[in-house]
Amino acid sequence: MKLVSYTADGKQAYGIARDDGIVDLTARIGDSYPDLKSLIAGDGFRAAQAAADGEKADHGLDGITYRPVIGNPDKIICVGLNYKAHREETGRAPTDNPALFLRFADTQAGHNQPMIKPANSDMFDYEGELAVIIGKGGRHVKAADYASVIAGYSIYNDGSVRDFQSHTIQWTAGKNFPKTGGFGPWMVTADELGDPSRLELTTRLNGEVLQNATTDLLIFDIPTLIEYITSFTELRAGDVISTGTPGGVGNKRDPQIFMKDGDTVEVEISKIGTLVNPIVNE
Amino acid sequence: MKLVSYTADGKQAYGIARDDGIVDLTARIGDSYPDLKSLIAGDGFRAAQAAADGEKADHGLDGITYRPVIGNPDKIICVGLNYKAHREETGRAPTDNPALFLRFADTQAGHNQPMIKPANSDMFDYEGELAVIIGKGGRHVKAADYASVIAGYSIYNDGSVRDFQSHTIQWTAGKNFPKTGGFGPWMVTADELGDPSRLELTTRLNGEVLQNATTDLLIFDIPTLIEYITSFTELRAGDVISTGTPGGVGNKRDPQIFMKDGDTVEVEISKIGTLVNPIVNE
Repeated sequence: MKLVSYTADGKQAYGIARDDGIVDLTARIGDSYPDLKSLIAGDGFRAAQAAADGEKADHGLDGITYRPVIGNPDKIICVGLNYKAHREETGRAPTDNPALFLRFADTQAGHNQPMIKPANSDMFDYEGELAVIIGKGGRHVKAADYASVIAGYSIYNDGSVRDFQSHTIQWTAGKNFPKTGGFGPWMVTADELGDPSRLELTTRLNGEVLQNATTDLLIFDIPTLIEYITSFTELRAGDVISTGTPGGVGNKRDPQIFMKDGDTVEVEISKIGTLVNPIVNE
Repeated sequence: MKLVSYTADGKQAYGIARDDGIVDLTARIGDSYPDLKSLIAGDGFRAAQAAADGEKADHGLDGITYRPVIGNPDKIICVGLNYKAHREETGRAPTDNPALFLRFADTQAGHNQPMIKPANSDMFDYEGELAVIIGKGGRHVKAADYASVIAGYSIYNDGSVRDFQSHTIQWTAGKNFPKTGGFGPWMVTADELGDPSRLELTTRLNGEVLQNATTDLLIFDIPTLIEYITSFTELRAGDVISTGTPGGVGNKRDPQIFMKDGDTVEVEISKIGTLVNPIVNE
Protein backbone atom coordinates (compact mmCIF):
# COMPACT_ATOMS: atom_id res chain seq x y z
CA MET A 1 0.00 0.00 0.00
CA LYS A 2 1.21 3.49 -0.88
CA LEU A 3 0.02 6.29 1.39
CA VAL A 4 0.16 9.90 0.32
CA SER A 5 -0.47 13.31 1.93
CA TYR A 6 -1.86 15.95 -0.38
CA THR A 7 -4.09 18.94 -0.96
CA ALA A 8 -7.06 18.74 -3.35
CA ASP A 9 -9.95 21.13 -3.85
CA GLY A 10 -8.31 23.43 -1.31
CA LYS A 11 -8.38 20.84 1.48
CA GLN A 12 -5.60 18.89 3.12
CA ALA A 13 -6.14 15.16 2.84
CA TYR A 14 -4.36 11.85 2.71
CA GLY A 15 -5.08 8.72 0.79
CA ILE A 16 -3.94 5.59 -0.97
CA ALA A 17 -1.99 6.01 -4.21
CA ARG A 18 -2.78 3.30 -6.77
CA ASP A 19 -1.98 2.94 -10.46
CA ASP A 20 -5.43 4.32 -11.30
CA GLY A 21 -5.14 7.32 -8.96
CA ILE A 22 -5.71 8.45 -5.39
CA VAL A 23 -8.39 7.10 -3.08
CA ASP A 24 -9.24 9.79 -0.52
CA LEU A 25 -8.98 8.33 3.00
CA THR A 26 -9.77 11.59 4.79
CA ALA A 27 -13.32 11.50 3.40
CA ARG A 28 -13.74 7.86 4.45
CA ILE A 29 -11.91 7.39 7.76
CA GLY A 30 -10.80 10.93 8.61
CA ASP A 31 -12.91 11.02 11.75
CA SER A 32 -10.85 8.20 13.22
CA TYR A 33 -7.54 9.14 11.65
CA PRO A 34 -7.37 12.84 10.70
CA ASP A 35 -3.99 12.63 8.96
CA LEU A 36 -1.41 10.11 7.86
CA LYS A 37 0.59 10.49 11.06
CA SER A 38 -2.47 9.60 13.14
CA LEU A 39 -3.26 6.67 10.83
CA ILE A 40 0.24 5.37 11.49
CA ALA A 41 0.00 6.07 15.23
CA GLY A 42 -3.33 4.26 15.39
CA ASP A 43 -2.12 1.33 13.26
CA GLY A 44 -5.01 2.03 10.89
CA PHE A 45 -3.59 0.26 7.84
CA ARG A 46 -6.29 -2.42 7.69
CA ALA A 47 -8.99 0.19 8.10
CA ALA A 48 -7.37 2.15 5.26
CA GLN A 49 -7.25 -0.87 2.99
CA ALA A 50 -10.82 -1.82 3.81
CA ALA A 51 -12.04 1.73 3.16
CA ALA A 52 -10.43 1.78 -0.29
CA ASP A 53 -11.25 -1.75 -1.47
CA GLY A 54 -13.64 -1.67 -4.41
CA GLU A 55 -13.69 2.14 -4.48
CA LYS A 56 -12.92 4.15 -7.58
CA ALA A 57 -10.04 6.59 -7.42
CA ASP A 58 -11.08 10.11 -6.41
CA HIS A 59 -8.22 11.94 -8.12
CA GLY A 60 -5.69 11.25 -10.83
CA LEU A 61 -2.09 10.90 -9.68
CA ASP A 62 -1.48 14.29 -11.30
CA GLY A 63 -4.67 15.78 -9.91
CA ILE A 64 -3.40 16.55 -6.43
CA THR A 65 -0.85 18.82 -4.81
CA TYR A 66 1.57 16.55 -3.01
CA ARG A 67 2.58 17.50 0.51
CA PRO A 68 5.53 16.05 2.44
CA VAL A 69 4.55 12.46 3.32
CA ILE A 70 4.56 13.40 7.00
CA GLY A 71 4.21 17.15 7.34
CA ASN A 72 4.62 17.30 11.10
CA PRO A 73 7.13 14.71 12.32
CA ASP A 74 8.24 15.21 15.92
CA LYS A 75 11.74 14.11 14.90
CA ILE A 76 13.54 14.19 11.56
CA ILE A 77 16.87 12.45 12.05
CA CYS A 78 19.32 12.41 9.17
CA VAL A 79 22.41 10.25 8.81
CA GLY A 80 25.60 11.71 7.39
CA LEU A 81 28.46 9.91 5.64
CA ASN A 82 26.60 6.60 5.49
CA TYR A 83 27.84 5.33 2.11
CA LYS A 84 31.56 4.63 1.75
CA ALA A 85 31.84 6.42 -1.61
CA HIS A 86 30.30 9.56 -0.10
CA ARG A 87 32.36 9.37 3.08
CA GLU A 88 35.50 9.06 0.98
CA GLU A 89 34.60 11.97 -1.32
CA THR A 90 34.22 14.17 1.79
CA GLY A 91 37.61 13.10 3.12
CA ARG A 92 36.17 11.97 6.46
CA ALA A 93 37.53 9.04 8.47
CA PRO A 94 35.28 6.10 9.40
CA THR A 95 33.48 6.26 12.75
CA ASP A 96 32.14 3.52 15.02
CA ASN A 97 28.72 5.15 15.18
CA PRO A 98 26.55 7.03 12.71
CA ALA A 99 26.85 10.82 12.39
CA LEU A 100 23.39 12.28 12.95
CA PHE A 101 21.91 15.70 12.42
CA LEU A 102 18.38 17.04 12.64
CA ARG A 103 16.06 18.90 10.29
CA PHE A 104 13.09 21.08 11.19
CA ALA A 105 9.69 20.11 9.77
CA ASP A 106 9.49 23.39 7.82
CA THR A 107 12.47 22.35 5.71
CA GLN A 108 10.35 19.74 3.91
CA ALA A 109 8.77 20.01 0.45
CA GLY A 110 6.33 17.59 -1.15
CA HIS A 111 6.72 15.79 -4.48
CA ASN A 112 6.47 18.13 -7.46
CA GLN A 113 6.69 21.12 -5.12
CA PRO A 114 9.61 23.54 -5.34
CA MET A 115 12.80 23.03 -3.40
CA ILE A 116 13.85 26.60 -2.65
CA LYS A 117 17.35 27.81 -3.52
CA PRO A 118 18.29 30.33 -0.81
CA ALA A 119 19.00 33.91 -1.88
CA ASN A 120 22.11 33.99 0.29
CA SER A 121 23.87 30.96 -1.19
CA ASP A 122 24.78 29.58 -4.60
CA MET A 123 25.84 26.20 -3.18
CA PHE A 124 22.51 24.35 -3.07
CA ASP A 125 23.21 20.63 -3.42
CA TYR A 126 21.12 17.46 -3.77
CA GLU A 127 21.34 14.32 -1.62
CA GLY A 128 19.09 11.43 -2.65
CA GLU A 129 18.25 9.17 0.32
CA LEU A 130 16.06 6.31 1.45
CA ALA A 131 13.76 7.50 4.26
CA VAL A 132 12.35 5.33 7.03
CA ILE A 133 9.00 6.29 8.56
CA ILE A 134 8.46 5.11 12.12
CA GLY A 135 5.32 3.20 13.12
CA LYS A 136 4.85 2.19 16.71
CA GLY A 137 8.29 3.42 17.70
CA GLY A 138 10.04 2.76 20.98
CA ARG A 139 13.19 3.19 23.03
CA HIS A 140 16.14 0.80 23.43
CA VAL A 141 15.06 -1.25 20.39
CA LYS A 142 17.49 -4.02 19.42
CA ALA A 143 18.68 -4.21 15.82
CA ALA A 144 17.03 -7.60 15.42
CA ASP A 145 13.68 -6.02 16.26
CA TYR A 146 14.05 -3.09 13.88
CA ALA A 147 11.10 -4.09 11.71
CA SER A 148 8.70 -3.82 14.65
CA VAL A 149 9.10 -0.03 14.79
CA ILE A 150 8.89 0.81 11.07
CA ALA A 151 5.68 1.75 9.25
CA GLY A 152 7.18 2.18 5.80
CA TYR A 153 9.68 3.78 3.48
CA SER A 154 9.87 6.84 1.29
CA ILE A 155 12.35 9.07 -0.52
CA TYR A 156 14.16 12.10 0.83
CA ASN A 157 16.21 14.69 -1.00
CA ASP A 158 18.29 16.07 1.86
CA GLY A 159 18.98 19.37 0.11
CA SER A 160 22.11 20.95 1.56
CA VAL A 161 23.41 24.50 1.49
CA ARG A 162 27.11 23.68 1.45
CA ASP A 163 28.67 26.99 2.46
CA PHE A 164 26.40 27.24 5.52
CA GLN A 165 26.93 23.54 6.27
CA SER A 166 30.67 24.08 6.53
CA HIS A 167 30.57 27.29 8.58
CA THR A 168 31.44 25.12 11.59
CA ILE A 169 31.72 21.38 12.28
CA GLN A 170 27.99 21.30 13.09
CA TRP A 171 25.97 20.96 9.89
CA THR A 172 22.74 22.41 11.31
CA ALA A 173 22.60 25.69 9.40
CA GLY A 174 23.19 24.17 5.95
CA LYS A 175 20.54 21.51 6.49
CA ASN A 176 17.72 23.71 7.74
CA PHE A 177 16.79 26.27 5.12
CA PRO A 178 13.03 26.28 4.48
CA LYS A 179 11.70 23.90 1.84
CA THR A 180 15.09 22.50 0.93
CA GLY A 181 14.21 18.87 1.68
CA GLY A 182 12.08 16.93 -0.80
CA PHE A 183 10.02 14.17 0.84
CA GLY A 184 7.75 11.93 -1.18
CA PRO A 185 5.95 11.10 -3.29
CA TRP A 186 4.41 8.64 -0.81
CA MET A 187 5.15 6.07 1.85
CA VAL A 188 5.28 2.43 0.79
CA THR A 189 4.26 0.26 3.72
CA ALA A 190 6.95 -2.03 5.10
CA ASP A 191 5.02 -5.21 4.23
CA GLU A 192 4.78 -4.17 0.57
CA LEU A 193 8.39 -3.01 0.28
CA GLY A 194 10.04 -6.06 1.79
CA ASP A 195 13.80 -5.96 2.39
CA PRO A 196 15.01 -2.31 2.52
CA SER A 197 18.60 -3.38 1.83
CA ARG A 198 17.77 -4.51 -1.73
CA LEU A 199 16.85 -1.17 -3.30
CA GLU A 200 18.50 0.89 -6.02
CA LEU A 201 18.74 4.68 -5.60
CA THR A 202 19.34 7.09 -8.49
CA THR A 203 19.54 10.89 -8.37
CA ARG A 204 19.17 12.86 -11.59
CA LEU A 205 19.57 16.58 -12.17
CA ASN A 206 17.91 17.76 -15.36
CA GLY A 207 17.92 14.13 -16.49
CA GLU A 208 21.60 13.46 -15.88
CA VAL A 209 22.39 10.63 -13.45
CA LEU A 210 24.58 12.03 -10.64
CA GLN A 211 24.12 9.42 -7.91
CA ASN A 212 23.49 5.71 -8.25
CA ALA A 213 23.87 3.11 -5.53
CA THR A 214 22.16 0.20 -3.85
CA THR A 215 21.02 0.31 -0.24
CA ASP A 216 23.04 -2.78 0.70
CA LEU A 217 25.99 -0.34 0.63
CA LEU A 218 24.79 1.59 3.69
CA ILE A 219 27.63 1.62 6.24
CA PHE A 220 25.17 1.63 9.14
CA ASP A 221 22.19 -0.41 7.95
CA ILE A 222 18.65 0.28 9.05
CA PRO A 223 18.62 -2.22 11.95
CA THR A 224 21.83 -0.67 13.29
CA LEU A 225 20.45 2.85 12.90
CA ILE A 226 17.28 1.94 14.80
CA GLU A 227 19.28 0.42 17.66
CA TYR A 228 21.66 3.39 17.87
CA ILE A 229 19.01 6.08 17.61
CA THR A 230 16.73 4.47 20.19
CA SER A 231 19.70 4.15 22.54
CA PHE A 232 19.41 7.92 23.12
CA THR A 233 15.91 8.99 22.04
CA GLU A 234 12.41 7.60 21.81
CA LEU A 235 11.04 7.19 18.31
CA ARG A 236 7.33 7.76 17.78
CA ALA A 237 4.80 7.32 15.01
CA GLY A 238 5.57 9.52 12.03
CA ASP A 239 9.18 10.21 12.93
CA VAL A 240 11.52 10.13 9.96
CA ILE A 241 15.03 8.77 9.57
CA SER A 242 16.77 9.73 6.34
CA THR A 243 19.47 7.12 5.95
CA GLY A 244 22.21 9.03 4.15
CA THR A 245 23.31 9.76 0.62
CA PRO A 246 25.63 7.86 -1.77
CA GLY A 247 28.66 9.29 -3.51
CA GLY A 248 28.30 11.83 -6.29
CA VAL A 249 27.09 14.96 -4.50
CA GLY A 250 27.55 18.15 -6.49
CA ASN A 251 29.80 19.84 -3.93
CA LYS A 252 32.54 17.20 -4.36
CA ARG A 253 32.51 17.05 -8.16
CA ASP A 254 35.12 18.65 -10.36
CA PRO A 255 33.77 20.97 -11.57
CA GLN A 256 31.21 21.41 -8.80
CA ILE A 257 27.51 21.18 -9.66
CA PHE A 258 24.91 23.15 -7.73
CA MET A 259 21.17 23.43 -8.24
CA LYS A 260 19.74 26.64 -9.63
CA ASP A 261 16.40 28.16 -10.48
CA GLY A 262 14.73 26.24 -13.30
CA ASP A 263 16.48 22.92 -12.63
CA THR A 264 14.59 19.70 -11.95
CA VAL A 265 15.96 17.19 -9.45
CA GLU A 266 14.70 13.62 -9.23
CA VAL A 267 15.43 10.82 -6.78
CA GLU A 268 14.23 7.38 -7.83
CA ILE A 269 14.25 4.36 -5.54
CA SER A 270 13.16 0.94 -6.77
CA LYS A 271 9.88 -0.34 -5.30
CA ILE A 272 9.04 3.18 -4.08
CA GLY A 273 8.91 5.57 -7.04
CA THR A 274 10.40 8.89 -8.08
CA LEU A 275 10.50 12.11 -6.07
CA VAL A 276 10.60 15.11 -8.41
CA ASN A 277 11.26 18.70 -7.34
CA PRO A 278 11.73 21.82 -9.43
CA ILE A 279 14.31 24.26 -8.07
CA VAL A 280 12.98 27.77 -7.55
CA ASN A 281 14.76 30.85 -6.20
CA GLU A 282 13.80 32.16 -2.78
CA MET B 1 6.88 40.05 34.51
CA LYS B 2 7.83 36.43 35.12
CA LEU B 3 5.77 33.81 33.27
CA VAL B 4 5.75 30.19 34.31
CA SER B 5 4.34 26.90 32.95
CA TYR B 6 3.29 24.41 35.60
CA THR B 7 0.93 21.70 36.77
CA ALA B 8 -1.28 22.21 39.82
CA ASP B 9 -4.21 20.17 41.08
CA GLY B 10 -3.56 17.75 38.22
CA LYS B 11 -4.02 20.37 35.51
CA GLN B 12 -1.53 22.00 33.18
CA ALA B 13 -1.56 25.75 33.54
CA TYR B 14 0.58 28.84 33.17
CA GLY B 15 0.74 31.99 35.17
CA ILE B 16 2.65 34.93 36.53
CA ALA B 17 5.29 34.24 39.18
CA ARG B 18 5.50 36.97 41.81
CA ASP B 19 7.26 37.19 45.16
CA ASP B 20 4.00 36.22 46.87
CA GLY B 21 3.32 33.25 44.58
CA ILE B 22 1.75 32.24 41.30
CA VAL B 23 -1.26 33.94 39.72
CA ASP B 24 -3.05 31.41 37.49
CA LEU B 25 -3.53 32.88 34.01
CA THR B 26 -5.12 29.76 32.52
CA ALA B 27 -8.15 30.26 34.77
CA ARG B 28 -8.40 33.93 33.80
CA ILE B 29 -7.42 34.25 30.13
CA GLY B 30 -6.97 30.60 29.08
CA ASP B 31 -9.82 30.82 26.58
CA SER B 32 -7.87 33.40 24.59
CA TYR B 33 -4.41 32.04 25.31
CA PRO B 34 -4.44 28.34 26.22
CA ASP B 35 -0.74 28.11 27.05
CA LEU B 36 2.32 30.30 27.43
CA LYS B 37 3.39 29.74 23.82
CA SER B 38 0.03 31.01 22.57
CA LEU B 39 0.20 33.98 24.96
CA ILE B 40 3.56 34.87 23.43
CA ALA B 41 2.30 34.26 19.88
CA GLY B 42 -0.74 36.46 20.54
CA ASP B 43 1.31 39.19 22.25
CA GLY B 44 -0.95 38.80 25.27
CA PHE B 45 1.40 40.32 27.85
CA ARG B 46 -0.85 43.30 28.63
CA ALA B 47 -3.85 41.02 28.96
CA ALA B 48 -1.80 38.85 31.32
CA GLN B 49 -0.76 41.80 33.46
CA ALA B 50 -4.28 43.18 33.55
CA ALA B 51 -5.70 39.81 34.55
CA ALA B 52 -3.28 39.50 37.46
CA ASP B 53 -3.36 43.08 38.75
CA GLY B 54 -4.90 43.24 42.21
CA GLU B 55 -5.40 39.48 42.34
CA LYS B 56 -4.11 37.33 45.18
CA ALA B 57 -1.67 34.57 44.33
CA ASP B 58 -3.35 31.22 43.67
CA HIS B 59 -0.39 29.03 44.63
CA GLY B 60 2.81 29.39 46.59
CA LEU B 61 6.01 29.33 44.56
CA ASP B 62 6.60 25.86 46.03
CA GLY B 63 2.99 24.76 45.52
CA ILE B 64 3.25 23.91 41.83
CA THR B 65 5.03 21.36 39.65
CA TYR B 66 7.17 23.37 37.28
CA ARG B 67 7.13 22.35 33.62
CA PRO B 68 9.65 23.49 30.99
CA VAL B 69 8.91 27.17 30.36
CA ILE B 70 7.88 26.31 26.81
CA GLY B 71 7.02 22.63 26.59
CA ASN B 72 6.44 22.50 22.86
CA PRO B 73 8.85 24.79 21.02
CA ASP B 74 8.96 24.22 17.26
CA LYS B 75 12.69 24.88 17.35
CA ILE B 76 15.25 24.54 20.13
CA ILE B 77 18.53 25.88 18.79
CA CYS B 78 21.63 25.58 20.94
CA VAL B 79 24.93 27.36 20.48
CA GLY B 80 28.20 25.51 21.06
CA LEU B 81 31.58 26.93 22.01
CA ASN B 82 30.23 30.44 22.57
CA TYR B 83 32.44 31.50 25.49
CA LYS B 84 36.17 31.76 24.90
CA ALA B 85 37.08 29.88 28.09
CA HIS B 86 34.86 26.97 27.06
CA ARG B 87 36.06 26.96 23.47
CA GLU B 88 39.64 26.88 24.72
CA GLU B 89 39.03 24.05 27.20
CA THR B 90 37.61 21.96 24.32
CA GLY B 91 40.67 22.66 22.17
CA ARG B 92 38.57 24.01 19.27
CA ALA B 93 39.70 26.79 16.95
CA PRO B 94 37.66 29.99 16.57
CA THR B 95 35.04 30.08 13.79
CA ASP B 96 33.51 33.00 11.90
CA ASN B 97 29.99 31.78 12.62
CA PRO B 98 28.31 30.13 15.59
CA ALA B 99 28.24 26.32 15.88
CA LEU B 100 24.60 25.30 16.24
CA PHE B 101 22.90 22.06 17.19
CA LEU B 102 19.31 21.16 17.90
CA ARG B 103 17.45 19.54 20.79
CA PHE B 104 14.12 17.74 20.71
CA ALA B 105 11.32 19.08 22.92
CA ASP B 106 11.24 15.81 24.90
CA THR B 107 14.76 16.47 26.17
CA GLN B 108 13.48 19.26 28.40
CA ALA B 109 12.81 19.14 32.15
CA GLY B 110 11.16 21.81 34.28
CA HIS B 111 12.57 23.49 37.37
CA ASN B 112 12.81 21.15 40.37
CA GLN B 113 12.08 18.18 38.08
CA PRO B 114 14.66 15.44 37.60
CA MET B 115 17.29 15.61 34.91
CA ILE B 116 17.69 11.95 33.97
CA LYS B 117 21.13 10.33 33.94
CA PRO B 118 21.06 7.76 31.12
CA ALA B 119 21.58 4.11 32.03
CA ASN B 120 24.02 3.69 29.13
CA SER B 121 26.43 6.48 30.07
CA ASP B 122 28.33 7.68 33.13
CA MET B 123 29.38 10.92 31.44
CA PHE B 124 26.38 13.17 32.15
CA ASP B 125 27.58 16.77 32.24
CA TYR B 126 26.04 20.16 33.08
CA GLU B 127 26.08 23.28 30.88
CA GLY B 128 24.52 26.39 32.40
CA GLU B 129 23.22 28.77 29.73
CA LEU B 130 21.16 31.89 29.14
CA ALA B 131 18.11 31.03 27.02
CA VAL B 132 16.32 33.40 24.66
CA ILE B 133 12.59 32.87 24.05
CA ILE B 134 11.30 34.16 20.74
CA GLY B 135 8.28 36.44 20.53
CA LYS B 136 7.04 37.55 17.16
CA GLY B 137 9.95 35.93 15.33
CA GLY B 138 10.87 36.44 11.73
CA ARG B 139 13.33 35.68 8.96
CA HIS B 140 16.33 37.71 7.79
CA VAL B 141 16.31 39.83 10.96
CA LYS B 142 19.21 42.26 11.24
CA ALA B 143 21.28 42.27 14.43
CA ALA B 144 20.21 45.82 15.17
CA ASP B 145 16.58 44.67 15.24
CA TYR B 146 17.19 41.67 17.49
CA ALA B 147 15.03 42.96 20.33
CA SER B 148 11.96 43.03 18.09
CA VAL B 149 11.85 39.22 17.91
CA ILE B 150 12.50 38.36 21.57
CA ALA B 151 9.76 37.78 24.16
CA GLY B 152 12.02 37.12 27.11
CA TYR B 153 14.82 35.20 28.76
CA SER B 154 15.19 32.11 30.87
CA ILE B 155 17.78 29.57 32.04
CA TYR B 156 18.82 26.36 30.29
CA ASN B 157 20.95 23.52 31.59
CA ASP B 158 22.06 21.96 28.32
CA GLY B 159 22.77 18.56 29.89
CA SER B 160 25.22 16.66 27.71
CA VAL B 161 26.08 12.98 27.50
CA ARG B 162 29.74 13.36 26.60
CA ASP B 163 30.59 9.90 25.26
CA PHE B 164 27.60 9.97 22.89
CA GLN B 165 28.36 13.58 21.99
CA SER B 166 31.83 12.62 20.79
CA HIS B 167 30.83 9.47 18.88
CA THR B 168 31.15 11.57 15.71
CA ILE B 169 31.69 15.25 14.91
CA GLN B 170 27.91 15.79 15.07
CA TRP B 171 26.83 16.32 18.68
CA THR B 172 23.20 15.29 18.15
CA ALA B 173 23.15 12.02 20.09
CA GLY B 174 24.78 13.40 23.25
CA LYS B 175 22.42 16.36 23.36
CA ASN B 176 19.13 14.54 22.89
CA PHE B 177 18.59 12.05 25.70
CA PRO B 178 15.14 12.48 27.28
CA LYS B 179 14.82 14.97 30.13
CA THR B 180 18.46 15.95 30.13
CA GLY B 181 17.86 19.66 29.57
CA GLY B 182 16.65 21.78 32.48
CA PHE B 183 14.59 24.79 31.37
CA GLY B 184 13.19 27.25 33.87
CA PRO B 185 12.10 28.26 36.35
CA TRP B 186 10.29 30.92 34.31
CA MET B 187 10.61 33.43 31.51
CA VAL B 188 11.45 37.02 32.45
CA THR B 189 9.97 39.34 29.84
CA ALA B 190 12.48 41.31 27.80
CA ASP B 191 11.22 44.67 29.07
CA GLU B 192 11.79 43.62 32.69
CA LEU B 193 15.20 42.04 32.09
CA GLY B 194 16.75 44.89 30.14
CA ASP B 195 20.21 44.36 28.60
CA PRO B 196 20.90 40.61 28.24
CA SER B 197 24.64 41.23 27.98
CA ARG B 198 24.88 42.39 31.61
CA LEU B 199 24.01 39.16 33.43
CA GLU B 200 26.04 36.87 35.67
CA LEU B 201 25.72 33.10 35.27
CA THR B 202 26.74 30.59 37.94
CA THR B 203 26.45 26.79 37.81
CA ARG B 204 26.68 24.83 41.06
CA LEU B 205 26.77 21.07 41.57
CA ASN B 206 25.86 20.06 45.13
CA GLY B 207 26.57 23.64 46.13
CA GLU B 208 30.04 23.88 44.61
CA VAL B 209 30.51 26.63 42.00
CA LEU B 210 31.74 25.04 38.75
CA GLN B 211 30.90 27.72 36.20
CA ASN B 212 30.82 31.48 36.63
CA ALA B 213 30.82 34.05 33.86
CA THR B 214 29.09 37.16 32.63
CA THR B 215 27.08 37.26 29.43
CA ASP B 216 29.14 40.10 27.96
CA LEU B 217 31.69 37.33 27.31
CA LEU B 218 29.54 35.60 24.68
CA ILE B 219 31.63 35.26 21.51
CA PHE B 220 28.52 35.61 19.32
CA ASP B 221 26.21 37.95 21.19
CA ILE B 222 22.45 37.70 21.05
CA PRO B 223 21.97 40.23 18.21
CA THR B 224 24.54 38.35 16.12
CA LEU B 225 22.90 34.99 16.90
CA ILE B 226 19.49 36.31 15.85
CA GLU B 227 20.86 37.63 12.55
CA TYR B 228 22.73 34.41 11.78
CA ILE B 229 19.94 32.02 12.75
CA THR B 230 17.30 33.93 10.82
CA SER B 231 19.58 33.95 7.78
CA PHE B 232 18.71 30.25 7.35
CA THR B 233 15.51 29.58 9.29
CA GLU B 234 12.37 31.38 10.39
CA LEU B 235 11.98 31.88 14.13
CA ARG B 236 8.49 31.73 15.58
CA ALA B 237 6.82 32.44 18.91
CA GLY B 238 8.05 30.11 21.61
CA ASP B 239 11.20 29.01 19.84
CA VAL B 240 14.21 28.77 22.13
CA ILE B 241 17.84 29.71 21.59
CA SER B 242 20.21 28.50 24.27
CA THR B 243 23.20 30.76 23.95
CA GLY B 244 26.06 28.49 25.00
CA THR B 245 27.95 27.61 28.16
CA PRO B 246 30.98 29.18 29.84
CA GLY B 247 34.16 27.38 30.78
CA GLY B 248 34.23 24.87 33.60
CA VAL B 249 32.25 21.93 32.23
CA GLY B 250 32.83 18.66 34.07
CA ASN B 251 34.14 16.78 31.06
CA LYS B 252 37.18 19.06 30.73
CA ARG B 253 38.14 19.17 34.44
CA ASP B 254 41.00 17.25 35.93
CA PRO B 255 39.74 15.08 37.45
CA GLN B 256 36.53 14.98 35.44
CA ILE B 257 33.23 15.63 37.21
CA PHE B 258 30.02 14.00 36.03
CA MET B 259 26.52 14.15 37.47
CA LYS B 260 25.11 11.11 39.23
CA ASP B 261 21.95 9.98 40.93
CA GLY B 262 21.28 12.05 44.04
CA ASP B 263 23.19 15.14 42.90
CA THR B 264 21.58 18.57 42.66
CA VAL B 265 22.55 20.94 39.87
CA GLU B 266 21.69 24.64 39.91
CA VAL B 267 22.10 27.36 37.32
CA GLU B 268 21.63 30.90 38.58
CA ILE B 269 21.42 33.94 36.32
CA SER B 270 21.10 37.43 37.74
CA LYS B 271 17.72 39.12 37.14
CA ILE B 272 16.18 35.75 36.22
CA GLY B 273 16.53 33.35 39.14
CA THR B 274 17.84 29.85 39.83
CA LEU B 275 17.04 26.67 37.91
CA VAL B 276 17.38 23.65 40.19
CA ASN B 277 17.32 20.03 39.04
CA PRO B 278 17.95 16.83 40.99
CA ILE B 279 19.80 14.14 39.05
CA VAL B 280 17.96 10.81 38.95
CA ASN B 281 18.96 7.57 37.24
CA GLU B 282 17.02 6.42 34.18
